[in-house]
Amino acid sequence: MLGGDGYLGWPTAMHLSAAGHEVTVVDNFLRRAMATELGADSLTPIQSLQERIRAWKAVSGRNIDAVIGDLTDPYFVDQVFKEVRPDGIVHYGEQPSAPYSMIDRKHAVLTQRNNVEGTLNVLFAMRDFASDAHLMKLGTMGEYGTPDIDIEEGFIEINHKGRSDVLPYPKLPGSMYHLSKVHDSHNIHFACRVWNLRATDLNQGVVYGIRTDETDLDERLCTRFDYDEVFGTALNRFCVQAVVGYPLTVYGKGGQTRGFLNIVDTIQCVRLALENPASAGEFRVFNQFTEQFSVRDLALHVERVGEGLGLNAEVKGVQDPRIEAEEHYYNAAHTKLLELGLKPHLLDDDVVAHLLQ
Amino acid sequence: MLGGDGYLGWPTAMHLSAAGHEVTVVDNFLRRAMATELGADSLTPIQSLQERIRAWKAVSGRNIDAVIGDLTDPYFVDQVFKEVRPDGIVHYGEQPSAPYSMIDRKHAVLTQRNNVEGTLNVLFAMRDFASDAHLMKLGTMGEYGTPDIDIEEGFIEINHKGRSDVLPYPKLPGSMYHLSKVHDSHNIHFACRVWNLRATDLNQGVVYGIRTDETDLDERLCTRFDYDEVFGTALNRFCVQAVVGYPLTVYGKGGQTRGFLNIVDTIQCVRLALENPASAGEFRVFNQFTEQFSVRDLALHVERVGEGLGLNAEVKGVQDPRIEAEEHYYNAAHTKLLELGLKPHLLDDDVVAHLLQ
Repeated sequence: MLGGDGYLGWPTAMHLSAAGHEVTVVDNFLRRAMATELGADSLTPIQSLQERIRAWKAVSGRNIDAVIGDLTDPYFVDQVFKEVRPDGIVHYGEQPSAPYSMIDRKHAVLTQRNNVEGTLNVLFAMRDFASDAHLMKLGTMGEYGTPDIDIEEGFIEINHKGRSDVLPYPKLPGSMYHLSKVHDSHNIHFACRVWNLRATDLNQGVVYGIRTDETDLDERLCTRFDYDEVFGTALNRFCVQAVVGYPLTVYGKGGQTRGFLNIVDTIQCVRLALENPASAGEFRVFNQFTEQFSVRDLALHVERVGEGLGLNAEVKGVQDPRIEAEEHYYNAAHTKLLELGLKPHLLDDDVVAHLLQ
Repeated sequence: MLGGDGYLGWPTAMHLSAAGHEVTVVDNFLRRAMATELGADSLTPIQSLQERIRAWKAVSGRNIDAVIGDLTDPYFVDQVFKEVRPDGIVHYGEQPSAPYSMIDRKHAVLTQRNNVEGTLNVLFAMRDFASDAHLMKLGTMGEYGTPDIDIEEGFIEINHKGRSDVLPYPKLPGSMYHLSKVHDSHNIHFACRVWNLRATDLNQGVVYGIRTDETDLDERLCTRFDYDEVFGTALNRFCVQAVVGYPLTVYGKGGQTRGFLNIVDTIQCVRLALENPASAGEFRVFNQFTEQFSVRDLALHVERVGEGLGLNAEVKGVQDPRIEAEEHYYNAAHTKLLELGLKPHLLDDDVVAHLLQ
């Protein structure tokens, strides 16, 4: 579990541990350092990784191991792989924020170096010390951008001048962060082709929610709740804005449509991928989300539920700080995880009300 | 002229200088250091950059400036852009060898870091100090791999489920080096979209030859002639093998088909791109080669011409050290440079004989 101390990494680590898997968390606390750098605190109180692991042991009786170090250090990565000899590698260990990657050149280069070199080191360590292991790499739906045709899961059959081939789906990433994920995807695909590794690229939508069966067991087990413009994802941010009586700020026309999923489905998807590994040499891509919404519709949903709870929530358009299409076609396939057994938790009024409370 | 001291960079620098452009060469001598590292000498004697520039001045009466430094150093790149204020940037400044990038992890990571971060620094410097300049970036036909449909020039119209869009052509790069070029292409395309920069990606085929009008002026002006397995390109290597009486070694069945071009067409293409710049915000891709051959046909061509010259040249298959298709469909568009006025110098018997002599 690379990056097992983060917003999604920690709940996933507990979920896999609860399901009976032996879990080793690898983390360099980059996410905590970034929060410190920007003074962007989590709404929820976050325990140290060591305290989280102690609390998990106390509550569940299960061990989670931890190794602290940096994936951009090849010696460290090799040592971890030699010692752990993993069967599956869940790789969240990257700089996860698009706005952070766009602050300036330093943050752009840091993002691409950290993410691309870290993943390269993991691929070489797999080749040398865990050649039969299955890599589950967190990518993002944002790698695809917003093309004017349906988005498929990683590959597309192209009919062209009387011939046809199935090729990697073209990518139009919208930030230095999203670009780093596209670079990763190409590098991983190559490693599967030439080294016969097995990998699943989980192109995830926008995640909302903070509660899972495992975080609910003890308050020391909770995960981050970010609501600022750098780390907060759309729905989480709207809920905080509604609660504090601030307008729900939508960029531009708000027609930006994306795939969304509940955090409980994130951890379910990763477990399904882990328990149904790719074949040797296979580079498999799953689009990991359960529903599509426009940002405007999402904000209006929060406004409506918020009003029912007596909150004075109001959607307000602000100038879009990003270069992006504010209205566009969007239709993305997401059937492969359903075929593996994903049971979606959709965003109904109860879920929004629960988040607001 | 980034990387203006290399195999193609130096002849291009002289060619543009001869055409009346003011040229500043930027180089960190990575190519010379790599040759030293591997003990892989050029067949031709290479002068220092300073001596080359003095000889060029003596022969042509024209100045070429030089600045020595590393594109992965953002401060250096900014300083160069602030001082030179370029109208056009020809970017050869990358680690150029696929086999070198595949030696081991260190060389793989060095290649991707050097190439991707160097180009990121150039893009940021363009944004900040030369936002109207035109970037001509050397890419490679190897970014496309060998898909089973025709290869187009950077973009392809895809008809899919009743809709259509023109999207970046899918890439299947075959080495850590080729991957670095794919990453660059995505980063540059993004910079054009969000910062309104103008760029041309020159996806070049395999270059052969060492002589241009300018290198012929004085022996001190010659460029590198590499013939080893790391730096030597196919035709140059076959010619040396023929001359020394060694079998012409073809990997596997030799059906690997690629685009090829003469070095005189490389410099002609770059000049055409420079003198016909992309529009603001445009990311343009040209496939830069003039003919397609299989490696086997190329070797047989050298064998035949060599025999006419009394050389005992014989084609021999050896086991392919690469993971690649040894027989495959290959048909790549290459009309955009012809439309700008490219006059191809094709590979006829005279050219092969000239190389052998």
